[in-house]
This record gives sequence, structure tokens and C-alpha cells, in this order.
Amino acid sequence: MNKKGKLIVVSGPSGAGKSSLIAKAMEIRSDLSFSVSVTTREARPGEKDGEDYFFVSKERFAQMVEENALLEHATYVGNDYGTPREYVEQKREEGFNVVLDIEVQGAGQVHEMMPEAVMIFVIPPSLEELERRLTLRGTETPEKIRSRLERAREEYRHADLYRYIIVNDDLSVAAEELCAIITASHCLYEDRKNYLNESQEKNES
Amino acid sequence: MNKKGKLIVVSGPSGAGKSSLIAKAMEIRSDLSFSVSVTTREARPGEKDGEDYFFVSKERFAQMVEENALLEHATYVGNDYGTPREYVEQKREEGFNVVLDIEVQGAGQVHEMMPEAVMIFVIPPSLEELERRLTLRGTETPEKIRSRLERAREEYRHADLYRYIIVNDDLSVAAEELCAIITASHCLYEDRKNYLNESQEKNES
Repeated sequence: MNKKGKLIVVSGPSGAGKSSLIAKAMEIRSDLSFSVSVTTREARPGEKDGEDYFFVSKERFAQMVEENALLEHATYVGNDYGTPREYVEQKREEGFNVVLDIEVQGAGQVHEMMPEAVMIFVIPPSLEELERRLTLRGTETPEKIRSRLERAREEYRHADLYRYIIVNDDLSVAAEELCAIITASHCLYEDRKNYLNESQEKNES
Repeated sequence: MNKKGKLIVVSGPSGAGKSSLIAKAMEIRSDLSFSVSVTTREARPGEKDGEDYFFVSKERFAQMVEENALLEHATYVGNDYGTPREYVEQKREEGFNVVLDIEVQGAGQVHEMMPEAVMIFVIPPSLEELERRLTLRGTETPEKIRSRLERAREEYRHADLYRYIIVNDDLSVAAEELCAIITASHCLYEDRKNYLNESQEKNES
């Protein structure tokens, strides 16, 4: 792994199955690194600090923003989320494709700063299915579910920010698609045009 | 296979291993269809009419151009090559991703007419390696090899027409990349944005 890794931005409504999708893709290929976000929201049952998120106070988060230590940050349903910049760049230099699971708002910031980032929007087969999944999760109040569905509709209106859409119906198919998108992104003309020059120089020398 | 197949344009210097690459990819996935080109050049030893190419006379070729029966056509090292339009569209409607192995000249015509075509440039690891492969093939005179190498350099100058570059060093890796590019192309926003509308309509009704 000597080539620089890609920045893979994954967004999509809460309940679309982004976490399961990313976990599945990481089983398939070993060159993925999941960027753990910093957040001010409370941990859900089962979530681990430093694994699912870095759970920090509002004060600590504000300090990180101040220090420019976040690649992007956004507020979502009353909580702050951010991506630690140094961690991401270090992993990419090591050759890892770094996967960010971030909201549309933050994704827009990344896209603007790094137009070469691979932008992927993950959706459930339908919003009805999304509602069903959120209800089954059993950790959200009806009020919060309603809020998330409204937010999903709002996110859908910004989906044209993304180059790819993965419909997370069959998890295995969706994970194969995620992996294929990453492989394809390493084949882009911009990433490989040096082979054209090298070849020519070698031959002409 | 009910979704329409993609048009996959594969170009690259003679000797880059395009035929082996496409054959390998067709072993991996069954939804590929190789579009057999029409040509006026003579068959090489082992090549079969209707399988490698449709070998036709100069007169028949001109007639097909006249009848607008070719999706693109080009002259290469003194011979004419073309892609039968009807065959390609029929296969795509059936859900097959149709792979065209065509020259830069014809690829430009396809790209202009069908900007959604997936453009892939296949190269050997270096032009030195290309020369070695052409010599090993044993079917070309030194004069023709020189002509092909010159042509390769010329093609490299138009490589920015292509979205992807595959370096055909390890055939298995290259075939996996070709398959990944095809999978990724079906995940494009433009191809799937209908899921956003359908989902919303379902939920709002």
C-alpha cells in the first residue's frame, strides 16, 4: 500500500444502515479505515467511546473547532459532529482509504475543500422502510423518529452533491458496490495519468 | 437484469492486452456482452469471423456507413473498423453491459454521441513492455511493430478522453478493476436518483 488512500464520504439518513454497510465493506477489504467522529451527543446503549464516536463535551468540541482540528463539523438534531483532520490525513498517507460517515452539511464542506473526495449517498429502499427500521431500533421516541424522517427528506433534496447512490436493500450487494466504487476511484484518469508519461519517457530515452 | 446495460468503451494500444482483459472480465460477470466489430482488415491466424470480428470487404463496409448502421467507425493502420449500432442497443435493452474494444478515433465519436458511455483506457505497464509483447506475438513485421508503437504514443496524447485508466500488468487485478468500474457506473447519481423520488412519493402519499 504505497499509493495515497482516498477520502470516502458516506452520508444518508439515520437508519439507512451506513454503519452496517461500512462494517461489511471493511470485512471485504483490509485497506479501509473508518474515521471515528467527534460528537457532543449522548452515547446510545452499546456504543463505545473511541470506537463508534469520540464523545466529548460542548466545551471541548468548541475548542477543537477553534484549533482548526476538524476537517468538517456540523450540527444535527441538536448535537455537534466533527471529523478529526490529522487522523484522516495520516491514515491516507499510510495508504488507507478513509471512510467518513458524515451528515450532508459536513459532506458539503469536505466536497468544497477536497473535490476529489468520493461522495456516496446511502439510502434505504424507501422512506417507509426507513421509518420501520428506526422504529425497530427501539432507542428513539416517536417524536425523534418524526424528526429524523423530516431530516431524511431534507437530505434527499441535497443528494445531487453526491456522485454515487447506494440503495441499501441487500447488505452484501450494497457492500460490494461500496468496494467497487472505491476500486474504481483508484482507476481514475487523474490518479493514473503518470503511467502515460513514465511509459513514454522510458521508451523515448 | 431489468435495468438497461451500460456502454463500456475500452481503448488502448494494440498489445496492451485488451482482448484478454475483456475475456477475463466476462468470466467474472455474466452480464457483459462483447460487441463484435466490423473490419476490413485481414484475419490474423486463429481469429474467427463473427467472433473476433466480422470481416467484410471495403465495399460492404462503405455500404454500412452509408446506411448509418455503424455507431462509430474509424480507420486504423490502413483498415476500417466499425461498431454495429443495432446489436449494441438491443443488448443494452436486454440488460447487458456492452463492451466495445475500439480505437481512440471511434471512442471520441461514441463519447460525443453518448456522454454517459463509460470510457476506459487500457495500457501496458510501459511502452517497452508493449514492444516486447508485440514482438512475442510473432505475427507482426518489425515495420508494423514500429508503426504500432508510434500509434500508441499518439493514442497516449488523447488519453484524457477517458475517465479511467487500467494498467494491465496483472491480468486478474486488471479484470477486477474493469468489473469494479462497471459496478460503480451503475451506482451513479444520475442512474439512481429515481429512488429518491419514489421513496419520497411513497412516504408522502
